[in-house]
Amino acid sequence: MKRAILCAALLALAPFAAQAQSAAELLKASKTTDAVLTYGLGYDLNRFSPLTQINTKTVKKLVPKWSYSLADDQGQESQPIVYKGVMYVTTHKATMALDVNTGRQLWKTAYDYPQEVQRIACCGVTNRGVAIYEGKLFRTTLDAHVVAYDAATGKELWNEEAIPYHDGYTMTVTPLIADGVLILGVSGGEYGIRGFIEGRDPATGKSLWRRYTTAAPDEKGGDTWPGDTAKRGGAPAWLTGSYDPELGLVYWGTGNGGPWNAALRKGANLYICSMLALKPKTGELVWHYQFTPNDPFDYDGVNDPVLTTLKVDGKDRKVLLQANRNGYFYVLDRTNGEFIKGSQFVDKLTWADGLDPKTGVPIRSALTNKVLETGEETEIWPSMLGGKNWAPMAYSPKTGLAYVNSLNMGMKYKIAEADWRRGVMWLEADFAFVLPEDGNAGILRAIDPLTGKSKWTVPVGAPDNGGVLATAGDLVFTGHQTGEFSAYDASNGEKLWSYQTASGIEAPPVTWNQGGKQMVAVVSGFGAVMSMYVPHPVLGTVPKGGSVTVFQLAD
Amino acid sequence: MKRAILCAALLALAPFAAQAQSAAELLKASKTTDAVLTYGLGYDLNRFSPLTQINTKTVKKLVPKWSYSLADDQGQESQPIVYKGVMYVTTHKATMALDVNTGRQLWKTAYDYPQEVQRIACCGVTNRGVAIYEGKLFRTTLDAHVVAYDAATGKELWNEEAIPYHDGYTMTVTPLIADGVLILGVSGGEYGIRGFIEGRDPATGKSLWRRYTTAAPDEKGGDTWPGDTAKRGGAPAWLTGSYDPELGLVYWGTGNGGPWNAALRKGANLYICSMLALKPKTGELVWHYQFTPNDPFDYDGVNDPVLTTLKVDGKDRKVLLQANRNGYFYVLDRTNGEFIKGSQFVDKLTWADGLDPKTGVPIRSALTNKVLETGEETEIWPSMLGGKNWAPMAYSPKTGLAYVNSLNMGMKYKIAEADWRRGVMWLEADFAFVLPEDGNAGILRAIDPLTGKSKWTVPVGAPDNGGVLATAGDLVFTGHQTGEFSAYDASNGEKLWSYQTASGIEAPPVTWNQGGKQMVAVVSGFGAVMSMYVPHPVLGTVPKGGSVTVFQLAD
Repeated sequence: MKRAILCAALLALAPFAAQAQSAAELLKASKTTDAVLTYGLGYDLNRFSPLTQINTKTVKKLVPKWSYSLADDQGQESQPIVYKGVMYVTTHKATMALDVNTGRQLWKTAYDYPQEVQRIACCGVTNRGVAIYEGKLFRTTLDAHVVAYDAATGKELWNEEAIPYHDGYTMTVTPLIADGVLILGVSGGEYGIRGFIEGRDPATGKSLWRRYTTAAPDEKGGDTWPGDTAKRGGAPAWLTGSYDPELGLVYWGTGNGGPWNAALRKGANLYICSMLALKPKTGELVWHYQFTPNDPFDYDGVNDPVLTTLKVDGKDRKVLLQANRNGYFYVLDRTNGEFIKGSQFVDKLTWADGLDPKTGVPIRSALTNKVLETGEETEIWPSMLGGKNWAPMAYSPKTGLAYVNSLNMGMKYKIAEADWRRGVMWLEADFAFVLPEDGNAGILRAIDPLTGKSKWTVPVGAPDNGGVLATAGDLVFTGHQTGEFSAYDASNGEKLWSYQTASGIEAPPVTWNQGGKQMVAVVSGFGAVMSMYVPHPVLGTVPKGGSVTVFQLAD
Repeated sequence: MKRAILCAALLALAPFAAQAQSAAELLKASKTTDAVLTYGLGYDLNRFSPLTQINTKTVKKLVPKWSYSLADDQGQESQPIVYKGVMYVTTHKATMALDVNTGRQLWKTAYDYPQEVQRIACCGVTNRGVAIYEGKLFRTTLDAHVVAYDAATGKELWNEEAIPYHDGYTMTVTPLIADGVLILGVSGGEYGIRGFIEGRDPATGKSLWRRYTTAAPDEKGGDTWPGDTAKRGGAPAWLTGSYDPELGLVYWGTGNGGPWNAALRKGANLYICSMLALKPKTGELVWHYQFTPNDPFDYDGVNDPVLTTLKVDGKDRKVLLQANRNGYFYVLDRTNGEFIKGSQFVDKLTWADGLDPKTGVPIRSALTNKVLETGEETEIWPSMLGGKNWAPMAYSPKTGLAYVNSLNMGMKYKIAEADWRRGVMWLEADFAFVLPEDGNAGILRAIDPLTGKSKWTVPVGAPDNGGVLATAGDLVFTGHQTGEFSAYDASNGEKLWSYQTASGIEAPPVTWNQGGKQMVAVVSGFGAVMSMYVPHPVLGTVPKGGSVTVFQLAD
């Protein structure tokens, strides 16, 4: 009898084990609570968890369960992946597997790359984490390689150079597995690269397709670039996209044009600062939407394309939401790229006088025209870091609100001449930050997607850049540059809980259920873009040093 | 009426503020619960706290309150000092002041020193913390300087070179303030130095006296060294001593002879591997006791000299306790240096056949004689790291037990010829660790001082080297190389609580009362002597990365 039960149990287990991190599992990632299977907690990048054990009533009992040092003093932006009791986390120089119950290291695999690459990492020597699929982990590297590891042992399975880094390319993106294809994009928009998004075979690492993000002269959009400017036209694709399996489309944002001085590349410059809808198997471009044509201010369009359904004018629409660096919150129809709504979500925005209500095309302000025509130093809001930087937002289908680490900084911007040189930052512009008078360069916002209005705001002082997690427990978690990791009431922004981690937080939190206990994890480690450029006084008091901390309710 | 009360309160406060970290306060350090005023939690180095809020019943509710990254990947051995809501902590390259309520940095002062010094730090690039006195902080540096900072601002007040590091000197010791004198000692016993202990003026940093720890030919003990061997005879003084204000004596241990090959320096080699009783104002040597004459095995006598009163043969004796590296637990009469008792406290000890019961002089074993006479490789227990390494023990006057991170390792030891070269490790011996078959290279012990017997033991696997804290709440706290920070029942060794810190722990915990809440703090950060030399498999799984974590009972 005992034996029969055991056999039944083993049989029940077998199919699950066989499908470990299968395509089928990934499709259900956003509903899965006993794992963190993908970047963004699901293909929709909602960063919303249905878990409720930790909620507005219980969160006061939330305490650290363990901490683990990442042994690295660079800025840490890695989102943990959690599968079957193992957490996978990265730094620029290592990939680690940790026992989620104890915090002890199961394996750690170093990744060595030439030190000189760090000079072409404009905005921090960092990595954003792994993708998991069929027992393998996939990551990108600062020297623009893509690497696969055995998830059980950390053994390197393959290592492919995406493109030589010498031309200004780096990679920090978490790969996306969509329809069995490993998809990733490059960084380097400040170094005169030509951006691209690429599909690879997860089994071998071989490239299946490459979609350049600046249009070649002979293709659609090629006429939006003067001469051969598209060749070094930027449009990096450095943040992970979302995926709609029903529509069969991957949504992936593109970054700024290069160089920043847009007068040198008159035209819309497709496909900079755009959202691209691609077929994952082929890379075919099904539609595109350009947020900031001829962008002069580093207003990358790479921010997380969040997928949900919204009622618009009484009709359910399959939408894509994006809090864009340019200060506008976009709602697009993700079936065809149609502009539905765009609304200013930051308090101060001076580069444009609004968006065309039909097309969403921004109406450049006199200030922007002045700086482009005269090159003179002009104060522009938001700054080159945007109204929101890379920090992924959370969208709660329960409240209908998007929770955003918004930024509140301007810049003094001017044109500066400089020739392109291999591996040297190439902006043809110069900038200096303007901080707000009250010092609140960061504001956590709960944004209504269709109006851009904030239901509530929490000024946080130093500019946050880590990302947000929302839960069905009516909580919003986010980490601060000061190292504080906090939980807010999703309905009104009331701060309900906080823990001071060892360093500043620049990574997105995650949550999952571990054997009946809801866990929350966040990586801490100060040192990326904000520490490099922003002269906010608080940033000078934050120590470096990477770690991950896991929390649960006290017994 | 209100005003009168206020005035009285101010008057009551004024003398206290004026005497901040005064000599009077330091005298009461071991009874003080609202601060951590000295290394060892008091001049007696008992590392015992009278606090009871955290006890065997409540400790399960102990949770981290905050963490702070030390932004350093070296081994961390700093004991925090806490005074009026500010915690002071060090690394080899910085001194930091933290708000104990929030964990936020109040100030951080970097200390730059030549990188080449790290080559002569035999056993880790580290620092053990500050002394506080009259509003100043005092620390030593790896390049053998002594530095004073303004405790309020971190401003450097003075910086004195104790001795040129080029000759093999480093410093990691926490200074001791005794009778208004700043006392410190040097490291470098593996580099052919001549050790010394020094008294300095805390106000100016100027040297008041220097006591060399190898006897000059013309002084008492000079005849214990052949030729001029005392000049490079070692006897470093790298751990903080204790102080008996009533007797007016400072107790300070000395380290191994140099080079390790004792056949090259036939004689007792005073004052290597000894306990020295000094007058703090003058450095006058009042008495000495040598634990390991002509030491060949790196059995430093520097371990913490713990002061208490024990009933011996029915009579209260003012004693000094030491768990020596040579594997024996010593009880000395601290009024005169008389040997009272010496008992083996480790399970395996092969270098001696016991101690002379009257004098405590060790009886060298045949194995030791063999290795010295033939130079051949011979297995000796304990290893060169000793039966206990630097990790300070705790002594509870409540239980009468000493709580010790003991080591359980041997070594294969042989003589190897090598000439002295400036700044190069100079042992004239070679060694390889022998680990115990069961893998328990570390054993936490509760030792009866007068018998050396363990009332209880906790095998811990990898060799611990952080130090112990005992409390009147019947708890024993210690950190493990794995990063676990644990609390044990002082009466039976039962593990009652544990938290996994971010890295391995090699620093002693502290506790104090902060506005009615008992706090516990420990520095974590793997990387010193054990990581450098000991081939224990667990050590390979511990990440580097320094931090301090503060704990309190959950609300």
